[in-house]
Amino acid sequence: MGEVRTIMIRENITAPNDRRAEETRSMLTKKGVLFINVMSSPGSGKTTLLTALINRMKDRIRIAEMDVDITSTLDAQRVADATGVRAMQIHNGGLCHIDADMTSRALQEFSTDDLDLLILENIGNLVCPAEFDTGAHRNVMLLSIPEGDDKPLKYPLMFSVSDIVLITKTDTAAYFNFDMDAARQRILQLNPDAVILSVCAKTGEGLDALEALLMKEIERVKNAAGING
Amino acid sequence: MGEVRTIMIRENITAPNDRRAEETRSMLTKKGVLFINVMSSPGSGKTTLLTALINRMKDRIRIAEMDVDITSTLDAQRVADATGVRAMQIHNGGLCHIDADMTSRALQEFSTDDLDLLILENIGNLVCPAEFDTGAHRNVMLLSIPEGDDKPLKYPLMFSVSDIVLITKTDTAAYFNFDMDAARQRILQLNPDAVILSVCAKTGEGLDALEALLMKEIERVKNAAGING
Repeated sequence: MGEVRTIMIRENITAPNDRRAEETRSMLTKKGVLFINVMSSPGSGKTTLLTALINRMKDRIRIAEMDVDITSTLDAQRVADATGVRAMQIHNGGLCHIDADMTSRALQEFSTDDLDLLILENIGNLVCPAEFDTGAHRNVMLLSIPEGDDKPLKYPLMFSVSDIVLITKTDTAAYFNFDMDAARQRILQLNPDAVILSVCAKTGEGLDALEALLMKEIERVKNAAGING
Repeated sequence: MGEVRTIMIRENITAPNDRRAEETRSMLTKKGVLFINVMSSPGSGKTTLLTALINRMKDRIRIAEMDVDITSTLDAQRVADATGVRAMQIHNGGLCHIDADMTSRALQEFSTDDLDLLILENIGNLVCPAEFDTGAHRNVMLLSIPEGDDKPLKYPLMFSVSDIVLITKTDTAAYFNFDMDAARQRILQLNPDAVILSVCAKTGEGLDALEALLMKEIERVKNAAGING
């Protein structure tokens, strides 16, 4: 079998992006706002899971969400309608990702002064978003059971850059041949520090653990800002 | 709610790509080889469906497959092992798509003289692959039931450029809230000429219709080449 290699064309553009991301992160750390960047394939259940999570947490902490999509305003509207928190839709003009500059420009229009948690729901894509630091403190990714346990082998960068990996739609495990142990091993081989949680927005499985994890991360940022939570 | 717009950065590179794609398409038409480009989200079931399809068709027609992935050789190996047809893995070096030049270079190493059907299994991504003509005669995309019926609204270009849309994993319809009529309407609004088929590799649903459709397309290419099938 043959093999074709091509060069990466994006390498030279990551340095300015990384500087801009660091500015955003530092600005939000100073305010004591935890910023998470949520990524996955299309249809892994980002909006559904985030809606459930926000509804559990919104009475204890102040939350806002930014949703990236090519043209539609579905997700921001769904989140705003279902949770009542502030939501903003970012249209990225057909691009396959959002970078630090787009995030930073969006944040100029979207006040972060009154927040504890800022959520960025990235565009559904396992390739491009992984290449761009958005300025988030933590990358969170979803791998849904129907997608299969081989995804870490096929999209390794995404799993390498994600601090928290959520295995979602666990209520469908009986329907699909998904080897949870194999998936965990493949993720940890790429990213030994990854925190892996099984979650399900429908049944509520794992949401307590995810909420506790995020509360701990918020506390960490508040401590870094010298704010007592 | 605010809105952020950014410019497209890829427009200037599509013209040379389109010329290169036309060369590939014309070369394959002359040989009477139907070339299809199969696209979808990660985990929609491309490899499983193509394996089932090839096994049904391989005794009647000559088939080969090219699989695009970032680093792994899983898919080409799976197809070769499960079907016995010639398969080639293309590593695209971390890019989010394959373009006409990469396809053309791969075909220099992969003879198409003895074929009736050449299948390109693209990388799992609903954004980037839609922007590049690979030289295929027909774009085929999969939308799996677990991804949800709203995907045409969120990834419109992919649905606009796909001649054939396969709604897959229909055996899981009872598990997921997927409105088939809404999905069909959204697809046809973007692409009134799209052929939409419901298929399931597990149960065999729709595979007869898909096979018949491809046989008709092969005949069309053979007629254009002046070859009597």
